[in-house]
Amino acid sequence: MATVGFIGVGNMGGPMAINLVRAGHQVKVYDLSPQLMEPVVAAGAAAAASPEEAVAGAEFVVSMLPSGPIVEDLYIHGARLLEAISKTSLVIDCSTIAPDNAVNLATAARQRGIATLDAPVSGGVAGAQAGTLTFIVGGALPDFERARPLLLGMGKNVFHAGDHGAGQIAKICNNMLLAVHMIGTAEALQLGVDNGLDPEVLSNIMLQSSGRNWSLELYNPYPGVMESVPASKGYEGGFQVNLMNKDLGLALEAGLKSQSATPMGNLAKSLYVQHGRNGWGKKDFSSIQKWFEKQEK
Amino acid sequence: MATVGFIGVGNMGGPMAINLVRAGHQVKVYDLSPQLMEPVVAAGAAAAASPEEAVAGAEFVVSMLPSGPIVEDLYIHGARLLEAISKTSLVIDCSTIAPDNAVNLATAARQRGIATLDAPVSGGVAGAQAGTLTFIVGGALPDFERARPLLLGMGKNVFHAGDHGAGQIAKICNNMLLAVHMIGTAEALQLGVDNGLDPEVLSNIMLQSSGRNWSLELYNPYPGVMESVPASKGYEGGFQVNLMNKDLGLALEAGLKSQSATPMGNLAKSLYVQHGRNGWGKKDFSSIQKWFEKQEK
Amino acid sequence: MATVGFIGVGNMGGPMAINLVRAGHQVKVYDLSPQLMEPVVAAGAAAAASPEEAVAGAEFVVSMLPSGPIVEDLYIHGARLLEAISKTSLVIDCSTIAPDNAVNLATAARQRGIATLDAPVSGGVAGAQAGTLTFIVGGALPDFERARPLLLGMGKNVFHAGDHGAGQIAKICNNMLLAVHMIGTAEALQLGVDNGLDPEVLSNIMLQSSGRNWSLELYNPYPGVMESVPASKGYEGGFQVNLMNKDLGLALEAGLKSQSATPMGNLAKSLYVQHGRNGWGKKDFSSIQKWFEKQEK
Amino acid sequence: MATVGFIGVGNMGGPMAINLVRAGHQVKVYDLSPQLMEPVVAAGAAAAASPEEAVAGAEFVVSMLPSGPIVEDLYIHGARLLEAISKTSLVIDCSTIAPDNAVNLATAARQRGIATLDAPVSGGVAGAQAGTLTFIVGGALPDFERARPLLLGMGKNVFHAGDHGAGQIAKICNNMLLAVHMIGTAEALQLGVDNGLDPEVLSNIMLQSSGRNWSLELYNPYPGVMESVPASKGYEGGFQVNLMNKDLGLALEAGLKSQSATPMGNLAKSLYVQHGRNGWGKKDFSSIQKWFEKQEK
Repeated sequence: MATVGFIGVGNMGGPMAINLVRAGHQVKVYDLSPQLMEPVVAAGAAAAASPEEAVAGAEFVVSMLPSGPIVEDLYIHGARLLEAISKTSLVIDCSTIAPDNAVNLATAARQRGIATLDAPVSGGVAGAQAGTLTFIVGGALPDFERARPLLLGMGKNVFHAGDHGAGQIAKICNNMLLAVHMIGTAEALQLGVDNGLDPEVLSNIMLQSSGRNWSLELYNPYPGVMESVPASKGYEGGFQVNLMNKDLGLALEAGLKSQSATPMGNLAKSLYVQHGRNGWGKKDFSSIQKWFEKQEK
Repeated sequence: MATVGFIGVGNMGGPMAINLVRAGHQVKVYDLSPQLMEPVVAAGAAAAASPEEAVAGAEFVVSMLPSGPIVEDLYIHGARLLEAISKTSLVIDCSTIAPDNAVNLATAARQRGIATLDAPVSGGVAGAQAGTLTFIVGGALPDFERARPLLLGMGKNVFHAGDHGAGQIAKICNNMLLAVHMIGTAEALQLGVDNGLDPEVLSNIMLQSSGRNWSLELYNPYPGVMESVPASKGYEGGFQVNLMNKDLGLALEAGLKSQSATPMGNLAKSLYVQHGRNGWGKKDFSSIQKWFEKQEK
Repeated sequence: MATVGFIGVGNMGGPMAINLVRAGHQVKVYDLSPQLMEPVVAAGAAAAASPEEAVAGAEFVVSMLPSGPIVEDLYIHGARLLEAISKTSLVIDCSTIAPDNAVNLATAARQRGIATLDAPVSGGVAGAQAGTLTFIVGGALPDFERARPLLLGMGKNVFHAGDHGAGQIAKICNNMLLAVHMIGTAEALQLGVDNGLDPEVLSNIMLQSSGRNWSLELYNPYPGVMESVPASKGYEGGFQVNLMNKDLGLALEAGLKSQSATPMGNLAKSLYVQHGRNGWGKKDFSSIQKWFEKQEK
Repeated sequence: MATVGFIGVGNMGGPMAINLVRAGHQVKVYDLSPQLMEPVVAAGAAAAASPEEAVAGAEFVVSMLPSGPIVEDLYIHGARLLEAISKTSLVIDCSTIAPDNAVNLATAARQRGIATLDAPVSGGVAGAQAGTLTFIVGGALPDFERARPLLLGMGKNVFHAGDHGAGQIAKICNNMLLAVHMIGTAEALQLGVDNGLDPEVLSNIMLQSSGRNWSLELYNPYPGVMESVPASKGYEGGFQVNLMNKDLGLALEAGLKSQSATPMGNLAKSLYVQHGRNGWGKKDFSSIQKWFEKQEK
């Protein structure tokens, strides 16, 4: 079992840290909000009074933060946390951030002899709680192998995408594709309904045909077709439109940098932004189905 | 075993008719091109000298034709084939045509007391040959049940989508969604590759994540990732860009009629049309991957 | 001065017919709704009890109808009005319809020795009332020359676009481009406003720069920037979203037929359809500005 | 007449500096490439051996640089040129950069008591040479008034868009709208041509109708319609696709930051990126017309 310093225990980081405790690791947590640390401490973690205290002597440093600038600020520019981390530690940043931020962290850490991985997750709050997250990891292969057992304490799938930043890129590509087939699914279902089809019948046909995709299979956006998904619960819970917009923004930025054409991703971004501006930002991203509905009285 | 009159034995209809013969049915075929009839006759079908002769006394009339106007012309306006069909026959039109054409056929047939089904297929020439087509059927449920055993002689999945025209609508929705996730998959893969990822590694990650879809799973558009798909064979064979364009055209027309918004489908149509105009019309539709590639010298 | 049979005196046709009367022509009108004929008759036209009576002996037959099928039904299939029209008449159809419908009318008329023009208009109800319409005309040049003086009684610009159907195509192209730069203008203005610019200042800058376009110059979609436009009157009046959708539908159909890629037009169609479904169908098309506004509370 | 330190005398900056000399100003220039300074010195400017020497004691500092990071590096982080600039100088940065970069420069300068303006230009190399540029300026109004006479030595239109960064935002909005109506114009022309219209006739009709826009009026993308434009000279010269891509990238980034929906701009970006990747990066941006052409043999 390992010693772990864990920074950032919000919606995602909290249950992840708790799962590490349950897996038998010795976890010391820090968060700007002491309140967020309480459930993790109740589960058996130690509370640190500062990030420096959390990481002191830890074999692994795990962080789960809201944005790339915050990650860079914590480790490099502001708090300079790297200075407090041992050369034998492995830093695993699970935040979803721009690949550039991940590469900057890796470069700054390397200069101090510290190894890092970017390990963004897929699976949402439910996956974090259930310990079924997918980790998409960028960094050196031996570091990836070293991190694997720890990550499997918080998830069930662990992928090595490539070098530093590759975890972020792979996650970005995946989520862009997710947005595209979610919208595509919503518009196909609405086209069918507008032409007299039953959305459940159409869903079943497409599921067994070439239209099949993850959105249709596990996350049907049409209310009432699947029981337990957000679409059947007023689009509450799930993966927020605002978060999808954040990930699509990272995808667009990556494409701007590499001069890649992403017409479907760009269109998805426009529609999700407008959907968010229309008041749907905090609802599940499958609520894009409502964009297609006829509202006219 | 049933008697079947089969009209239109081209790339798709030919192997379908042969499979009916092999399933033990008594098949009489007709095609404008006698040459196309030869392999079907060689397989054991009888050759008819006219459509009227093919359908005379048949329990089932099956047609596989290139377009809606041709279907209407055969049955209603031009050849008036309905006049030669017995009231006890069941007409199964397997052509992919506009829902309106299907409804027109159903209406004209009903006036003569003849039952019809629209039963467009999914699965392509390979599926037609292997007898693994999917039939998406519109029409009355008892007629669907009556047709089911016959259709299962040519395919392995048979769906009832709803009333007359519903088979066409469901196929159109499915193929629009297919186009969307194929292009989405191609652009996600290219974005990854442009940012240093290996397309196979990225494909595997997305396959086990929320980006998963039929294109990624069975038809990877990036050359070399999957062995037997068109992408690894110079985009030969498969489902032609021109045919995808035809289906997307039907989707747009359906959306125009029902005043449905189909932004992703509309964009897919624009990209496929341009791709076809650029010389890719007769290649497989996964060749849209080339649209994203950097050609600049 | 000429004798004119005028069919269809609704919002557009009514004021057009009145202007013909005022220009000194002898006009006989017909409409399915006697009520619509009243103001035209009050202006000096004669009322006909049937389309046949309206066109009998007229030098010009002018029609202004809501759709292509209705035009074909009147002249060719249903009312067979062509049979009542003299070979020396010139038929000028001002309806906005598919080019195919225009060509069908021209072909059917030619078989009876009757000359036709397709002459869709631009300028809306206000232009019809003020006699400032633009006529975009397809047909033979001598017929165009013959019609010109009559058309100038209802408008101020008359263009010869080419052969039969060319008037419709040119109008379709124009209106597709109009939709594109209207939406482009709205989104540029909102992007500026979201980033702190004053919409009027930004409008003035773009008007004198390369962003200049008709929408920005004469029809600013941002409320309050221009005084007399629909944007400053709650988007009342003007050119309805539903009508723009009709024209964009004709553009898409034309593109489907010629296998032309129209990505901007396709996207415009999707946005306008969704805007219409959201309850804006009867408002002016510059109300697309509201699509971009932040509604979130 | 004023003393001016001018940094960056490439394609744009060179002729701009020469025009300042011709207007009677005392100009001291600096560029990393001594070769680029030669024609400006030949025109009467003094050569500086360093940026510091160029700006020493100058009433105005004008810079024309390729990107925002380079601007920040020159003035703030790397060369720290601000430290060499007098508090009585007015810094006018004419580079097209992200609004954030402009604001950063303004903030850093203000801390040293130095006033700045962002003043990106429109009009291209031809406009720089002819002295007919348009300056779109952000910053304080009195500074704008102070700069105006100097700017009119290099251009003929000067607009005050708002506070620091507003010049960049306004230029970005304008160029995004330009891209949209250029592509819209190209696709409308091709749709017309594909349906039998003459591109010149169609252009003339749309010019006098609601499709009118700057691209159609001054920069027709269809070869042969206008004599002196890039379209009639193999798309050589003009405003490069790569530069349009840079500006569209700035627009997308601005939209990402303000969470504005820019569907038309996003689509334009995708098409221009792909066009550039296809080998058109160094051709004029009106070459997007070729994207629509039928290449198929």
